[in-house]
Amino acid sequence: MASSSSLTLSQAILSRSSIPRHGSTSTSSSLSLPSFSGLKSTSSSAVIRRRGPTTTRLPIRASAAVEILEKTTEAELVEKSVNTIRFLAIDAVEKANSGHPGLPMGCAPMGHILYDEVMRYNPKNPYWFNRDRFVLSAGHGCMLQYALLHLAGYDAVKEEDLTSFRQWGSKTPGHPENFETPGVEVTTGPLGQGIANAVGLALAEKHLAARYNKPGSEIVDHYTYVILGDGCQMEGISNEACSLAGHWGLGKLIAFYDDNHISIDGDTEIAFTETVDTRFEALGWHVIWVKNGNTGYDEIRAAIKEAKAVKDKPTLIKVTTTIGFGSPNKANSYSVHGSALGAKEVEATRKNLGWPYEPFHVPEDVKKHWSRHVPEGAAFEAEWNAKFAEYEKNPFLQAYTPESPGDATRNLSQQNLNALAKVLPGLLGGSADLASSNMTLLKMFGDFQKNTPEERNVRFGVREHGMGAICNGIALHSPGLIPYCATFFVFTDYMRAAMRISALSEAGVIYVMTHDSIGLGEDGPTHQPIEHLASFRAMPNILMLRPADGNETAGAYKVAVLNKKRPSVLALSRQKLPQLPGTSIEGVEKGGYTISDNSSGNKPDVILIGTGSELEIAATAGDELRKEGKAVRVVSFVSWELFDEQSDEYKESVLPAAVTARVSIEAGTTFGWGKIVGAKGKAIGIDRFGASAPAGKIYKEFGITVEAVIAAAKEVC
Amino acid sequence: MASSSSLTLSQAILSRSSIPRHGSTSTSSSLSLPSFSGLKSTSSSAVIRRRGPTTTRLPIRASAAVEILEKTTEAELVEKSVNTIRFLAIDAVEKANSGHPGLPMGCAPMGHILYDEVMRYNPKNPYWFNRDRFVLSAGHGCMLQYALLHLAGYDAVKEEDLTSFRQWGSKTPGHPENFETPGVEVTTGPLGQGIANAVGLALAEKHLAARYNKPGSEIVDHYTYVILGDGCQMEGISNEACSLAGHWGLGKLIAFYDDNHISIDGDTEIAFTETVDTRFEALGWHVIWVKNGNTGYDEIRAAIKEAKAVKDKPTLIKVTTTIGFGSPNKANSYSVHGSALGAKEVEATRKNLGWPYEPFHVPEDVKKHWSRHVPEGAAFEAEWNAKFAEYEKNPFLQAYTPESPGDATRNLSQQNLNALAKVLPGLLGGSADLASSNMTLLKMFGDFQKNTPEERNVRFGVREHGMGAICNGIALHSPGLIPYCATFFVFTDYMRAAMRISALSEAGVIYVMTHDSIGLGEDGPTHQPIEHLASFRAMPNILMLRPADGNETAGAYKVAVLNKKRPSVLALSRQKLPQLPGTSIEGVEKGGYTISDNSSGNKPDVILIGTGSELEIAATAGDELRKEGKAVRVVSFVSWELFDEQSDEYKESVLPAAVTARVSIEAGTTFGWGKIVGAKGKAIGIDRFGASAPAGKIYKEFGITVEAVIAAAKEVC
Repeated sequence: MASSSSLTLSQAILSRSSIPRHGSTSTSSSLSLPSFSGLKSTSSSAVIRRRGPTTTRLPIRASAAVEILEKTTEAELVEKSVNTIRFLAIDAVEKANSGHPGLPMGCAPMGHILYDEVMRYNPKNPYWFNRDRFVLSAGHGCMLQYALLHLAGYDAVKEEDLTSFRQWGSKTPGHPENFETPGVEVTTGPLGQGIANAVGLALAEKHLAARYNKPGSEIVDHYTYVILGDGCQMEGISNEACSLAGHWGLGKLIAFYDDNHISIDGDTEIAFTETVDTRFEALGWHVIWVKNGNTGYDEIRAAIKEAKAVKDKPTLIKVTTTIGFGSPNKANSYSVHGSALGAKEVEATRKNLGWPYEPFHVPEDVKKHWSRHVPEGAAFEAEWNAKFAEYEKNPFLQAYTPESPGDATRNLSQQNLNALAKVLPGLLGGSADLASSNMTLLKMFGDFQKNTPEERNVRFGVREHGMGAICNGIALHSPGLIPYCATFFVFTDYMRAAMRISALSEAGVIYVMTHDSIGLGEDGPTHQPIEHLASFRAMPNILMLRPADGNETAGAYKVAVLNKKRPSVLALSRQKLPQLPGTSIEGVEKGGYTISDNSSGNKPDVILIGTGSELEIAATAGDELRKEGKAVRVVSFVSWELFDEQSDEYKESVLPAAVTARVSIEAGTTFGWGKIVGAKGKAIGIDRFGASAPAGKIYKEFGITVEAVIAAAKEVC
Repeated sequence: MASSSSLTLSQAILSRSSIPRHGSTSTSSSLSLPSFSGLKSTSSSAVIRRRGPTTTRLPIRASAAVEILEKTTEAELVEKSVNTIRFLAIDAVEKANSGHPGLPMGCAPMGHILYDEVMRYNPKNPYWFNRDRFVLSAGHGCMLQYALLHLAGYDAVKEEDLTSFRQWGSKTPGHPENFETPGVEVTTGPLGQGIANAVGLALAEKHLAARYNKPGSEIVDHYTYVILGDGCQMEGISNEACSLAGHWGLGKLIAFYDDNHISIDGDTEIAFTETVDTRFEALGWHVIWVKNGNTGYDEIRAAIKEAKAVKDKPTLIKVTTTIGFGSPNKANSYSVHGSALGAKEVEATRKNLGWPYEPFHVPEDVKKHWSRHVPEGAAFEAEWNAKFAEYEKNPFLQAYTPESPGDATRNLSQQNLNALAKVLPGLLGGSADLASSNMTLLKMFGDFQKNTPEERNVRFGVREHGMGAICNGIALHSPGLIPYCATFFVFTDYMRAAMRISALSEAGVIYVMTHDSIGLGEDGPTHQPIEHLASFRAMPNILMLRPADGNETAGAYKVAVLNKKRPSVLALSRQKLPQLPGTSIEGVEKGGYTISDNSSGNKPDVILIGTGSELEIAATAGDELRKEGKAVRVVSFVSWELFDEQSDEYKESVLPAAVTARVSIEAGTTFGWGKIVGAKGKAIGIDRFGASAPAGKIYKEFGITVEAVIAAAKEVC
């Protein structure tokens, strides 16, 4: 099943916009189809490793990082560099009078070693594909990363950015944001998200390496580093993601656990006394303990070396540090976590660490020492090369007619996913243990597993939150990767924090959410979404799509795939639905459109509006009313966000302001529909929890029926 | 700080409505103040154990359960009883053609031993306070519990309930629901919730025992049992809650882990290869492995005995079972997890297990054997006694005038929490590591910890999801307990699944959510809620409250405390807010009300509507417009749900239909406001993500200003 695309891997994965946004949340509608590579994707589940393009290869000098690691810098200069990092953080937080100095002060040594001695990156091209990825999962300590990016020569963080930390329009917001600051890989701050993102980044590396590397041409070959704190460790999401990382044997994931025994409420003894090392061993990780993270540079170096030597397991390096190291009166206390030190304590810390410089000063020798990263980074990138081919657009979406057999949109979804997988080599994903219910298996591929990382069906287990955040990591690893993930729609509640970060960080994850209403029947109210459609319609920069049949499901996938910087949620039915006359892919792209109409002059007597499984009800009610002589327009309102983006003229052509006789029907809350149907219209929905019974019975009991629509229509017109 | 209440512990904790609901989601507005006990609550953080009422005590014969445990039943009868359970499940699923037979077939032995030999309960009063609690965290296996409740003699599950499994109006819905089926403690199905609920139940027991037991009068003394499966184990929430259970040393929590190696997608090998035993040891649990859960009755009995002997740690009993045990062709496969066996396989299973009976038949000797639980249960309850006294209403809420100093509503919240704690001995709770930011510490109490369980400040660590579900367990343990929990409002995304179950299961948890808008400033968009108010307004049976100042915060607490069967979310500001003229506790109780008005005849020129921190903006804009001669009404819209419940007359008196000139202002999404302001009104809000900068700057940049309100008002009127 060779794809006929003609973009090469390198072209595709390099093609990342480097224009950060501020003030814009919408994505361009002129995006082309996602490019990924012209490389063959696998057509069987057999393990065929190291296949790839027959292109010229520039062999990477394999162990550049290791070489650097061995050649350690003069001890005194290292100490000076580490203190530079500490004081950049102290000074920036002090000037902003807001922020978190404690972590940067404690983690400066590991930060220094990573960015100065270990990691391979190109400061002048933060999007160089084969860079090592770094994630600060303890995102509140972002001044650590800003200081490091500054020293390393990234253009995004100049001195004026440090002095405008946390200010309007700066490149140094209060938590790391990939869309603001090139050099930042993912958006962190909400605890635990970052470590899960890192699992996704490491998964992407392992997957791409397995698919595209050839002996002697390891074009995909980087590490993923992450710093996480006690807070991240307590969050359930981190256990979910780290259990998977151990299961998958992500040997190039190296996590530094900043073990400082302090969280916001005080000593971790008050709520966190588990044995983290043992837990990670149970999760299948290699664990190393660096007992002196404050000044034990060689310990840290040795740990990284050991971690790299363990190739079949991710490594947790527990680094015991002192939060706020260097502050004579505030170190090792929660007071240094999230507030400026205050002028007096800053002075005392300067004295204590022997730091005679002005705020924001970088000593010349430190500056000189770090200056090598710009040419070195350029050399890394120059060494790395990749080939070209061209990706060819294919008509890849299924077409349906009213004669096509009716089906559940979850089944139609599977047909589309499988069709897309053939032409989108970067499409991969899976379900949280509901593959056979969500219908998300890519039939021609095997499972992504420890020993079959080139495969494209990811088995997430029952770990929704981890799943979402891992997909964010995959999406932000390479622009050609399109991750999708699936569960029951109601369980978006388990992963909402990760989904919000998809939206915020412009990670175009596709969320395939089946069993989208009371229509799932007997599983009952714990499994029946009610408020979920509204809750995503209210969230910025995420597309909520609820297709009604085959054409609309195809349209929803088209929209989802094209919106690379905006995640999509597809709400799909468990129950079978008929193919409706009038539905279309093009209609879906407009968000709302007329599927049938017997009125003229844009003046129907009544407009019936439905989504998903209830569009059929609206259509049937429309037919009945027409038999009684009414001029009825039936509108599919598959995506409110897309409709909002249409021209006023188009909107008026679908929902003319003069026609106030409107009835909506949707098997979910009526919350939000008031604006669509207006004060004189009527919204039919469910403003209570569901019930356990066969679907048909529940629809009837809750009044989600053709009769109800007809009655409401007669009431309003 | 003796409370002057005069209800006793027993009266209060016994006073549970046993009327399940179906079809009603709202709670009575005539609830009295929550009663808990007349017992002294602690006035210092010193450890004073076993204090309590000076009431007559009936000493419980301590080890009834253990005695029973030792006197095991004739082996053959046990086997027959276990098969009865299996076939009740098989037959019910078969008849419904829907449900999950696999777990009941595998877990029937442990289920039998628990309900027949170990647990203390009173079938005729499922709400007897001192019953052992049982939670089926793997809620899909609910036929196990229904079969057990049926055999034990609970009125809720008669034969006709088994035969109407999963049907409209039955007491046997598709997942266990406490509000439908007396005998079911909590609502489970969404995986991981149940084990976290069980941690809350065990916490409540340990807490109440420490506060009220006296030597020789252990009126609070029960175990909490739970069955959880692989799916629960994978969910992050279970790690969060179990980490806390280990930390707190909840020795009377005994969890059975149904280790059957099968989840929906197949063998757990595909996604779950961690060493669960070791992880639980790392979490501070005692771990036992029962290798033969299918027929090893004595192994199970011995494990329970051992678990009870370990008093300072919770116990995980890993029970290796075969899913669908007894089915010759489907056992040990995912196909038996969630579908009826089918007539042929049912027949084969009957043959295989030697079961000659008709569907739903309970053999006479089994029936006879179980029949002793009704008199035994009555005896248990009769043995257990408690005292009466009467709880006296106190004016407990703070009052504020415009002269009172301005303050952040999170600080006003703390004043109210501390005032309430004095008069509500059942109020306990805490924060997910943000106590000093959420302002939730009860100053006169110490921390609930392993050795100070009588204290009332719970330290949840950074575990929002676990926190919410633990609070559900506390709320459903005793009607007198009022749990509250806190984090930043945006992080409701981490715990939304638990909050939804609060709403569904009528657990009146109080969610104290601070930093409720862009007003939190520099922490930036990851920390700034936008869509969250709308998302909870859309959720059934939960109150979303956003108070504007001191009086409104007091009112919000009054509402929250009075709504015992409906959880409340309080959105509170980080920033200081002035005390506004016209606000009132009574106003809050109505959801929306006029705080100032210079119009007459219910015909203002314009109505300005605000919530929380933006009510001040609306009020100031109103003053300005009045200076220009306008007749302006300013409305506080603190809770949409409460306003919806008012009479049409009242609603018309606040928002007269004839006045279409309306402007709303809220620092969040405008989604949903369309219905309030109408087609001719204007909603001012934020339909994008926030930004990192000082709060004042962001308000200005986003146009959440007095000027914007004035301009909009002029536009609409």
